[in-house]
Amino acid sequence: MTDLSTPQQSAPETPNVDPALLDNLIDAVDEKDSRWLARTLQRMHPADAADLLEALPVDTFSEAVEILGGELPSDILIELRDSYREEAVDVLPDTAVANALDELDSDDATVILEDLEDERRERILDDLAPFDRAQLERGLAYEEESAGRLMQTEFVAVPEYWTVGHAIDHARSLGEELPEIFYEIYIIDPAYRLMGIVQLATLLRTPRDVQLADIMTEPLSDITTDMDQEAVAFQFQKYSLASAPVKDSAGRLVGMITVDDMVDVIQEEANEDLFSLLNVTSADGADTVWDTVRSRAPWLAVNLFTAFIASGIISLFEGTIDRIVALAILMPVVAALGGNAGSQGLVVAVRAIAERQLDGAAARRAILREVLSGFVNGLMFAVGVGAIAMLWFRDFKLSLVIGAAMLITFLWAGLSGILVPLGLKKLGADPAVASSVFVLTLTDVMAFFSFLGLATLILL
Amino acid sequence: MTDLSTPQQSAPETPNVDPALLDNLIDAVDEKDSRWLARTLQRMHPADAADLLEALPVDTFSEAVEILGGELPSDILIELRDSYREEAVDVLPDTAVANALDELDSDDATVILEDLEDERRERILDDLAPFDRAQLERGLAYEEESAGRLMQTEFVAVPEYWTVGHAIDHARSLGEELPEIFYEIYIIDPAYRLMGIVQLATLLRTPRDVQLADIMTEPLSDITTDMDQEAVAFQFQKYSLASAPVKDSAGRLVGMITVDDMVDVIQEEANEDLFSLLNVTSADGADTVWDTVRSRAPWLAVNLFTAFIASGIISLFEGTIDRIVALAILMPVVAALGGNAGSQGLVVAVRAIAERQLDGAAARRAILREVLSGFVNGLMFAVGVGAIAMLWFRDFKLSLVIGAAMLITFLWAGLSGILVPLGLKKLGADPAVASSVFVLTLTDVMAFFSFLGLATLILL
Repeated sequence: MTDLSTPQQSAPETPNVDPALLDNLIDAVDEKDSRWLARTLQRMHPADAADLLEALPVDTFSEAVEILGGELPSDILIELRDSYREEAVDVLPDTAVANALDELDSDDATVILEDLEDERRERILDDLAPFDRAQLERGLAYEEESAGRLMQTEFVAVPEYWTVGHAIDHARSLGEELPEIFYEIYIIDPAYRLMGIVQLATLLRTPRDVQLADIMTEPLSDITTDMDQEAVAFQFQKYSLASAPVKDSAGRLVGMITVDDMVDVIQEEANEDLFSLLNVTSADGADTVWDTVRSRAPWLAVNLFTAFIASGIISLFEGTIDRIVALAILMPVVAALGGNAGSQGLVVAVRAIAERQLDGAAARRAILREVLSGFVNGLMFAVGVGAIAMLWFRDFKLSLVIGAAMLITFLWAGLSGILVPLGLKKLGADPAVASSVFVLTLTDVMAFFSFLGLATLILL
Repeated sequence: MTDLSTPQQSAPETPNVDPALLDNLIDAVDEKDSRWLARTLQRMHPADAADLLEALPVDTFSEAVEILGGELPSDILIELRDSYREEAVDVLPDTAVANALDELDSDDATVILEDLEDERRERILDDLAPFDRAQLERGLAYEEESAGRLMQTEFVAVPEYWTVGHAIDHARSLGEELPEIFYEIYIIDPAYRLMGIVQLATLLRTPRDVQLADIMTEPLSDITTDMDQEAVAFQFQKYSLASAPVKDSAGRLVGMITVDDMVDVIQEEANEDLFSLLNVTSADGADTVWDTVRSRAPWLAVNLFTAFIASGIISLFEGTIDRIVALAILMPVVAALGGNAGSQGLVVAVRAIAERQLDGAAARRAILREVLSGFVNGLMFAVGVGAIAMLWFRDFKLSLVIGAAMLITFLWAGLSGILVPLGLKKLGADPAVASSVFVLTLTDVMAFFSFLGLATLILL
């Protein structure tokens, strides 16, 4: 059967959905035209259909899912963004959810199960065939963000004494029962231990009578069910994998992870660093005002505390400022530039740690580099800031003080930008979380202390 | 042939290289033992071998490459990080570079060619077979970061009237001439226009006598040689692709992109946003002090300028500060919290734009959400900061002033955190670049202006 007759509804290079189609969809929901809805969505690629549904106002979206009920294809359900998927699962009847669990690959089914409240999950699992139920429960038993959660239990494994021809005939006899997409087959011994891997491309170019044992290669990856998703993604990236086998603690082959899931993990992890460094705990286009407040207020509260530490430092020099107001005008310059220099070093260090480029000798080189470049930049900006202050306030001593404070703050910023994340890593903490608050507080304190302190010593 | 006899030198879950092996490597370089070097490196996975070489001090690395010369496997060369690869290409003799170009897939060969200076590139290209030379020059003619640059010209394409059996026999007869890894074959018409795609998994499970035209599916992606890598990555992610065909402007199939290159692009793009938001232009563990200074000084210079704008605002209220020193002590609190709130909104907006979640109605919703959550957080922190100020300075009017300034600054921060990136996007600029400087300057100016302005009106 060919799919060529099914027109694609939206050009892939314009992810924005077709406004006319969206209007039709809204009309169909108003008229409760479930047949038109089901047919239109089924004709589209699930990813495009999900985009279209997500473009609906939230209420209309829920209504659409309610009208569709069991007619909402499960491959569209799984393509929806988290908040929409959760809403849809909420609205769908139990039978429709059970059906989706049945149809989806095990990794996707686990995602749906996670959305359910405990009681409802129990009820729906009870309705499934005992084998499916056991398999899904095993998936849920793995830690979140572990390889066990991400893997699918559908894969192709054959014994090593088989030939290429045997493997191809086996695949043909299974036909539609095989996973829809896979890139390699696994060679196992009778105890289900992984012996090797044969890429489909290799299988294809090898004569029928060659034994699989003679063309299999050793797995490049080494993934167990309890491995963290970040470590798994690292292996995918390092060895350019499209898929990889997953073993349990006894070394038996139990699942397969495909690269599309890893792409999401890699983006997620990079985003997490970004969010942590800029003090947001999460972000979703569908977040409500309340979600947004909750995800940001805690870090603002921490910042409130650190900001008053900086104020405390300033208040130590109240008398000095009282006599020279120019100090109050200039002190934010030292703090702003120092803070900027510190976060520049920090972001580089955090990404280098995440990409595992900062081990041993590399870390020592990086510390030296940060201090030296802090010195060079500090010297340049000490001269620059000093010159501007001289032009503005016509006070040589004042410009000397701000220049010296600048250099001290830059050196300090360079040092804390690298040592704080390395220190957090050594303590076993995520170097992205909290480090920017630390670094900014450290630089603020040093900026105000050095500038106002030197001013007190030299200008009074 | 089986690869099972070759032991892996380093466990994939510990990316740090084996220190003992590293010592042996350094000794071998000292003794110029090219045979041991070549044999050891060839026995490892190229990615592991590259990690090992990158762990060497820079001078020893160059020496190792020099000793190896043409014995450095080209698949290790291409796994090296940019700065190391450039250094290696610099050190290698012309014949070794020409050899690598010959052995590598076209997308990798283009990367090596880019490293060469014009004159040397001409000289080396002259030495290649005319066909290879023409192909490489065509690759170089595509824009950087375009699909044309990323694609490899090695792929499998067959006519639609072929059967499954025909395709498999063809693959077997080509054997080693086929690309080492591919996940799908392309079905073309006589003019090389793409008719459809057959996944290898589909090919495998289909009986020999079925025609390819009957099992091919329409390509999900639509990638042309001039498409930007970010748009290509977006299609890979949306449709969960392992590889995708690339067409030229006339619609002819000219290349294939595989997901491993896209994984790098996705990480690169996420990193670019991170770096832009934190004002660093680039970062590499192997950057020198000079690279580091150059990548950071421009943004510090911009910050120098904006910091003095903030100073200018403060100096407007010199007289007020002169009479109430507490203002100088408290003003950094308003600026710090406002800046933090602004960058929180900004990072969420920038990532939402990059992931194409902020179009049309979604953008309007996001603006409303940012203003409202700015209001809610602003109210909470206005009360908090006001209370602390009251406790500290025992001045009700002062705490009223700082509370009001806080609320105004939070509303302003929420608005600029979303409008600045949306505005930059509308202007066709990258919303990540420069927006954090804008937002921080806007919030600083508003923080100082509202706090000191209100103080002048109410407290004097």
